[in-house]
Amino acid sequence: MEKNRFELGIETLEKMFPAEALEGMKKMKEISPDFWEMIVGFGYGELYPREGLNLAERELVTLSSLITQGAFEQLDVHIRASLRVGLTEQQIKEVIIQCSGYAGFPKAVQAMKVASVIFADEAEKANK
Amino acid sequence: MEKNRFELGIETLEKMFPAEALEGMKKMKEISPDFWEMIVGFGYGELYPREGLNLAERELVTLSSLITQGAFEQLDVHIRASLRVGLTEQQIKEVIIQCSGYAGFPKAVQAMKVASVIFADEAEKANK
Amino acid sequence: MEKNRFELGIETLEKMFPAEALEGMKKMKEISPDFWEMIVGFGYGELYPREGLNLAERELVTLSSLITQGAFEQLDVHIRASLRVGLTEQQIKEVIIQCSGYAGFPKAVQAMKVASVIFADEAEKANK
Amino acid sequence: MEKNRFELGIETLEKMFPAEALEGMKKMKEISPDFWEMIVGFGYGELYPREGLNLAERELVTLSSLITQGAFEQLDVHIRASLRVGLTEQQIKEVIIQCSGYAGFPKAVQAMKVASVIFADEAEKANK
Amino acid sequence: MEKNRFELGIETLEKMFPAEALEGMKKMKEISPDFWEMIVGFGYGELYPREGLNLAERELVTLSSLITQGAFEQLDVHIRASLRVGLTEQQIKEVIIQCSGYAGFPKAVQAMKVASVIFADEAEKANK
Amino acid sequence: MEKNRFELGIETLEKMFPAEALEGMKKMKEISPDFWEMIVGFGYGELYPREGLNLAERELVTLSSLITQGAFEQLDVHIRASLRVGLTEQQIKEVIIQCSGYAGFPKAVQAMKVASVIFADEAEKANK
Repeated sequence: MEKNRFELGIETLEKMFPAEALEGMKKMKEISPDFWEMIVGFGYGELYPREGLNLAERELVTLSSLITQGAFEQLDVHIRASLRVGLTEQQIKEVIIQCSGYAGFPKAVQAMKVASVIFADEAEKANK
Repeated sequence: MEKNRFELGIETLEKMFPAEALEGMKKMKEISPDFWEMIVGFGYGELYPREGLNLAERELVTLSSLITQGAFEQLDVHIRASLRVGLTEQQIKEVIIQCSGYAGFPKAVQAMKVASVIFADEAEKANK
Repeated sequence: MEKNRFELGIETLEKMFPAEALEGMKKMKEISPDFWEMIVGFGYGELYPREGLNLAERELVTLSSLITQGAFEQLDVHIRASLRVGLTEQQIKEVIIQCSGYAGFPKAVQAMKVASVIFADEAEKANK
Repeated sequence: MEKNRFELGIETLEKMFPAEALEGMKKMKEISPDFWEMIVGFGYGELYPREGLNLAERELVTLSSLITQGAFEQLDVHIRASLRVGLTEQQIKEVIIQCSGYAGFPKAVQAMKVASVIFADEAEKANK
Repeated sequence: MEKNRFELGIETLEKMFPAEALEGMKKMKEISPDFWEMIVGFGYGELYPREGLNLAERELVTLSSLITQGAFEQLDVHIRASLRVGLTEQQIKEVIIQCSGYAGFPKAVQAMKVASVIFADEAEKANK
Repeated sequence: MEKNRFELGIETLEKMFPAEALEGMKKMKEISPDFWEMIVGFGYGELYPREGLNLAERELVTLSSLITQGAFEQLDVHIRASLRVGLTEQQIKEVIIQCSGYAGFPKAVQAMKVASVIFADEAEKANK
């Protein structure tokens, strides 16, 4: 059953993250296999697949929490995931703007810069 | 035009907050009329009425930011607002559970306690 | 197996927390049975029983994290747990003093006040 | 010389805090004499008496840091100190309003409530 | 009137930031014109020009909030602005030292490193 | 006596940090000799040499506080110090894993990446 939780986590991860981002995240497996199991099993096997909020709504929560705590490196992969689970670039910008009032402008400014790099990246890929 | 921004803010506030909560918030007007104008004009006149995310989605962002920064007194009024703009009790619980992974369990536990008091409050009112 | 994780969590909880503190924590079961299962299964079934650090060392980590994030209500129950898993009052005070340099004096002062109430409480119980 | 640092700290404390606030702070001496010595010797013996910023300017820094980290209990005594070292009520309100943009509105709202209780308190004393 | 708020914001920005810093900040206009309008209109059109605290005193608040929340990229441009609105290098160092007691040494150390790069930069320009 | 506090601090620093890390830290002496004296005298002359917790236990506290506040640059030197005062790589990983539940997964993931670079670094040195 523990194994099923892990398998469900891998499935969720593959649904949410683009291949390159997932590749980067999988490096954790070598650093600490235990921690990797926890991230996959608990984070993506228990939290994200829960009912009540869909993946796009859960990413609204995740993005807001990451911006508020200033975790900009994790914000990068979760903005990429947000686009895959159905949030638009406009919606992501609105999350950041809404956060300016709650977490302050400095964190919102920093988040907008992170987002703009990803959006430029995506535009470039789309044009190829 | 400045005045319109303020009027729009008051309108949004009345849509979002139950009467008693709004009454409490309006005490700010006497403490600092300037700050009250800013809260109404900027917060509820500029941020909340923006397009791209509806009020329920904006409250997902607000709740997550408040939980992450441990602002539990403001969380109280925004959980009440969340119920008015269409989030269900189950969805609010899911926001808190999702935050446990991102902001840590201590803040999620504290948030769940705040929510439970409000939900009991609402149940009591509904039973009258 | 999932069930074993939960059972192990309950066992750890009973080892760590005095009866009254545990009673307070168990109220979460009624607020959100799912979240309670997560706290017990993940927190006390997966994290605390891990090898590499014993329970007293894990509480050094927990206390430091709670002080740094200003989670003083959770700090209360974890100071009580710390005394049960082998930390002395002097060691707990030293954790707080050490945190003054890393998380700033305001949080350390607040933590020392929380600790002093618990230590007075324990002294009173011991004198009965 | 260590003793002089402590004596200078006591002198600074007496200059900065009204008698009742100081009485409350001195309770730390019984909880942890070592920590009290550190607060007095380092905080008020080394930091506040430094040149380059006067006490009023140092309180601008302190208030802003306390609001940003949500340390509202310490904010209370430092607002009282601010009034003693020369900041006006209007200036303190402006610190809070300025912080709304940098630390977010929830913390600024909470800080304004703390301030308003103190200002009412002071007005009452002045009227006696 | 909304336009006047924006114009006043631009004026304040030009008074506060050196040309290169301002150039960097203006990139926000392309990323999100709406957010840029908000930063200029609210931040620099409403907050900074308020009475009660002058620009140098407002920067004392801003620097302290940025250090406390660990927003070091924004700290960079605001240290540059602080020098333009009248704070000296010594005063900026004192803000950081004062913050060591309130926000902890790690953030103060990081802030001092950011400041030292800017001060070296300024010294080099002055020597040309 | 003040001088003794500083001398004791230097002694502690030399016991705790590898030569290169210490070299980097000493740059603070040129940026702000006063702040350097404070870091050495207060941090390493007063805090670390205190009784009640040994250096390894104090580093458990320091690491947890740094992870919780997201101070990853200081985390780097303190992981290096932790290895010198007796913590093993496994114990350091457990601190990080324990923090995932208290400070959230984003900060734990970031901390694990910082740690892995240092551990690879140490392994390389050991193989020479």
